[in-house]
Amino acid sequence: MSAAPPVSKGLDHVVVDRSSISWVGGETGDLVYRGFDVRDLVPGIPYESAVHLILHGDPPTADPSPEVTEALRQNRAPRPAVEQVVDALAPSLSARDALRTSLAAVGDGTFGYPPSTEQGYRLIAQTPVLLARFVRRSHGRAPVAARPDLSHAENYLRMLTGEAPAPKQAAALDAYLVLLADHGMNASTFALRIAVSTQSDFASAATAALAVLKGPVHGGAPSRVSDMLDAVGAPDRADRWILKKVADGEVLMGFGHRAYKTDDPRAVVLHAIAKRVADPARLELAETVERSALAALRAAKPNARLYTNVEFWSAVVLEAVGLPKELFTPTFAVARTAGWTAHALEQAANNRLIRPDIEYVGPAKGRRWPRPLPVPPAARG
Amino acid sequence: MSAAPPVSKGLDHVVVDRSSISWVGGETGDLVYRGFDVRDLVPGIPYESAVHLILHGDPPTADPSPEVTEALRQNRAPRPAVEQVVDALAPSLSARDALRTSLAAVGDGTFGYPPSTEQGYRLIAQTPVLLARFVRRSHGRAPVAARPDLSHAENYLRMLTGEAPAPKQAAALDAYLVLLADHGMNASTFALRIAVSTQSDFASAATAALAVLKGPVHGGAPSRVSDMLDAVGAPDRADRWILKKVADGEVLMGFGHRAYKTDDPRAVVLHAIAKRVADPARLELAETVERSALAALRAAKPNARLYTNVEFWSAVVLEAVGLPKELFTPTFAVARTAGWTAHALEQAANNRLIRPDIEYVGPAKGRRWPRPLPVPPAARG
Repeated sequence: MSAAPPVSKGLDHVVVDRSSISWVGGETGDLVYRGFDVRDLVPGIPYESAVHLILHGDPPTADPSPEVTEALRQNRAPRPAVEQVVDALAPSLSARDALRTSLAAVGDGTFGYPPSTEQGYRLIAQTPVLLARFVRRSHGRAPVAARPDLSHAENYLRMLTGEAPAPKQAAALDAYLVLLADHGMNASTFALRIAVSTQSDFASAATAALAVLKGPVHGGAPSRVSDMLDAVGAPDRADRWILKKVADGEVLMGFGHRAYKTDDPRAVVLHAIAKRVADPARLELAETVERSALAALRAAKPNARLYTNVEFWSAVVLEAVGLPKELFTPTFAVARTAGWTAHALEQAANNRLIRPDIEYVGPAKGRRWPRPLPVPPAARG
Repeated sequence: MSAAPPVSKGLDHVVVDRSSISWVGGETGDLVYRGFDVRDLVPGIPYESAVHLILHGDPPTADPSPEVTEALRQNRAPRPAVEQVVDALAPSLSARDALRTSLAAVGDGTFGYPPSTEQGYRLIAQTPVLLARFVRRSHGRAPVAARPDLSHAENYLRMLTGEAPAPKQAAALDAYLVLLADHGMNASTFALRIAVSTQSDFASAATAALAVLKGPVHGGAPSRVSDMLDAVGAPDRADRWILKKVADGEVLMGFGHRAYKTDDPRAVVLHAIAKRVADPARLELAETVERSALAALRAAKPNARLYTNVEFWSAVVLEAVGLPKELFTPTFAVARTAGWTAHALEQAANNRLIRPDIEYVGPAKGRRWPRPLPVPPAARG
């Protein structure tokens, strides 16, 4: 063994590939889809148009994208065999666990390698359908079919509640879905690209991505922001509550990000949306907690460059949209299916197995088993 | 944006962490588990003892490991809710797709972060149980319960066929399972460690690993070796068949490996086992195809250092064990659950989010949407 190469634990700043999909400017607070600053797109463009931009590289001919609208409409109905699996899930499962198994079930052999845009439309269209189906059935209610005249965001909410949402709430969800649609080389997208790099099928790759997304360090934490706001309870209790948590060395949910060393642009836009859609008391509580937390964190770790991350204001917006907090992470996945599709296509277009090394630091070769090995029957013949 | 750092597409030779579990000596043809050369362990040690070694770092007090034997016995019964999902799978699914959904279903909220050895025993014990259940039900047959007096390998075969296997076949499968139990930082293990790095649960991480394993560039190809042997048909046709494929630029299944630039030790040991257990005519065919292929590949690519990989002799051994080829990849997963468990525990013990960068090469920031953005209802309020 020659001199050991450096270990890049966490792969910070290791560049695994080139991508034309999105740019995360961690120092400048930028998120750019195909050259478009998300702050110029949200609020305003519907999710269908963002999907069009992310998958095809250019804006559609009209908003919402006629092509994506039609493709999602055509692809919403899951196969009966997939519905059968969703219907077999225990009602006690979390929606996150149910969605993982549902996406795994979508892979029925019709998602071969290489991935296609058509497969992507199926994934994007069916993720909210399967999720809503599980949620309603787990509450003893019949599934609600998608309505062809409603948008993706409107259908998602209606399939959950049975009623078309208020325009203000649908618009807020649309903004959320657009803002969360892609984000460079995050951990779930990376896992998806690894799966594609082995020429595994797209449904498997999406399942791997969801399995990674649900970790609280990635997409599994926004519900904990709601928990934190609930625990604080009122603005005048924020300072004391936050200072105690920081003094106890506990992690505050919704602050800090591996990539952003300044404001996360998604948090900034979602805060603006929260101002329009959130209950005023909840908004005031959230703003107070944010101020307290940033002040306390910066006092405790002056060099850490900690800012509010996307999860903090996601939680407030998704609450205002009417989603229960157990659906926050699955709704993140609903948004991210667009980026996953684009990354799967990009990986397959110029594919190479992603397979790093690991430095072995265990016992040296040459240990001996403490007993004679049993002679296997195959060796007796 | 400053000068672009180098792009490590494929992450070749990028060292992502340190590990004490296994050493893959690509230049020397070594595979070492916790200091033990696999060539000194196989044939001989039962899978239960290899699991013990891989999970705990040292050999058990007896073979087969009493601790692992008992733990697997205790953990074989899936929860009824998981069986219900397996039973809802379409019989037409491939066993690979069925296993992905089955592992996803195992994650019922009882596999929280951090992963534990106990969770690992559940995964190792239940993977063959769920797989055999699906296979039998998809053929209209009732599941066969595990027998507490049989080994892991014996139970796997008996749960599939309904009959305890011949000792020679059980021993060959045991050898296969031990040889495939871990292999450094392969792509599926890497995906698993990424999932654990987000603090996702162990069942999700194992699902992600399986989703990656099933790609033909990783674990999804051994059945194609059987297809190739079937297509060649007879030893005297091997040269012509192989030369035509190589001339046509087609990939020959079972040759070449990212890590090994010499003999893959697993292939060498599995060849020896094939000599004992395989049908003599099939063995002769495989040996002839191997010689033809290596000669043709080395003539076509003299600098490529191509050797027989593990999939080639895996296929011949698994055929001889009596497994249909659609179970080759799932059986690889059955073996690898040991390594996945050890890597999940190691990752969690000193965890850090694995999140690389990607170089954005798309259009520069500043593009403008071609139309006025629709004014969302939330903005009117």
